Amino acid sequence: MTADAAAHVAFLRGLRAVRQFRPDPVPEPAVTDILDVVRWSGSASNQQPFEVVLVQDRDTLRALASMEGYAAHLAGAPLAAVLVMANRRPEQDTFDEGRLSERIMLAAAAHGLGSSIGWLRGAGPEQAKRLLDIPLDRLVRTAISIGYPTEEAARRGGRRRPLASIVHRERYGRPDG
Amino acid sequence: MTADAAAHVAFLRGLRAVRQFRPDPVPEPAVTDILDVVRWSGSASNQQPFEVVLVQDRDTLRALASMEGYAAHLAGAPLAAVLVMANRRPEQDTFDEGRLSERIMLAAAAHGLGSSIGWLRGAGPEQAKRLLDIPLDRLVRTAISIGYPTEEAARRGGRRRPLASIVHRERYGRPDG
Repeated sequence: MTADAAAHVAFLRGLRAVRQFRPDPVPEPAVTDILDVVRWSGSASNQQPFEVVLVQDRDTLRALASMEGYAAHLAGAPLAAVLVMANRRPEQDTFDEGRLSERIMLAAAAHGLGSSIGWLRGAGPEQAKRLLDIPLDRLVRTAISIGYPTEEAARRGGRRRPLASIVHRERYGRPDG
Repeated sequence: MTADAAAHVAFLRGLRAVRQFRPDPVPEPAVTDILDVVRWSGSASNQQPFEVVLVQDRDTLRALASMEGYAAHLAGAPLAAVLVMANRRPEQDTFDEGRLSERIMLAAAAHGLGSSIGWLRGAGPEQAKRLLDIPLDRLVRTAISIGYPTEEAARRGGRRRPLASIVHRERYGRPDG
C-alpha cells in the first residue's frame, strides 16, 4: 500500500457534513477545481444528465434557505451549488445526483471547505426553479452549501453504524471477519 | 492551495469506469479500506440505510452477471459489492445509493483498483435477492465490480461535456466565466 493510497482513503473517510460556515468567500481556484470534478463526474450510460447553478448572491442564498425543505443552512453559506437534473430518467438521475453530490462535497473538502447537502421539498423545487430561471421541466431538489467551517463545526465527529451491521460476505446474513 | 488539495482533486477527477479486469484477487487491506469508507458514508438524516454483500465466489459472480440488467462486467471481476438498501424511503435511498457507489469506486481507485457500476433491472433484483439470501423487501439494484484494470482498460480516457454547457452563475442561462 502506497502513501498516496493511505492519504486518499483517509481523505474519503474523513468527509463530514458541515452546516456552520465562516463568512469568508470560497476562493475562485477552489470553485474552479469543484467545477472540474463536476465535469468529470461519471453517470449512467455517460449521459451526464446534470447542470449546476452556482449561487453566491446573499439574497438568493437566503431565499433558497427559506424555501420548503431542508436547506436552511444555505442562509449562512458563502456559496451554493444547485443541481439541475435533466429529469428524463428520474431513477437514474436521482442516483447520478447522489454521485455528483458526493464528488462536490469531496472536491470542496480537498480545499479545506465544508459542505452539506440540502434538499428542497414540497413547493420548494418549483420556487427555486422560478427564482433561478431554471426550466420547469427539470428536476431540482439538491442544493449544496459550501464554505469554510466554523471552528466548532470543524471539530465535530459524527457517528456511524458498526461495520459488522453493514457488511456481509458472499451471502446476506454472513457477517464480515 | 496545498499539494494535498491538488493531489486529492486530481484523484477525484481521474476516476473512470473500468470493465475489464486482471484475474488477480483484491488484496484484503484494500477490501478493509473500501469497507471503512463505506462505513463512514454520509446519508440522508444520517440514517445509513445501506448494507453491502461482498462477493468473491466465481460462480456467484457469473450468476449475477447473467441476470437481467447491465452487470455483465461482474463475470470477469474478482470482487463485487452488492448494495442492499433499506427501501423505506426509495427516493432518499436511491440518492444515498449513488453517494455510496461513488465512494466505493473512489476507495477502490485509491488502491489502484478499477470498478464499474452495474445495475440489475426487470427480474434481476429479485433473482439476486434469492441467490444472496437478501430479504425480499430490500432494494437491490446496484452491483459494483472491482478489480485491477487490464492494461487496455487503464489507458482508456473517457469523454465529458464541456464545462460551459454544465455550469451557470447565479441564474440558469448565465454561463460560467
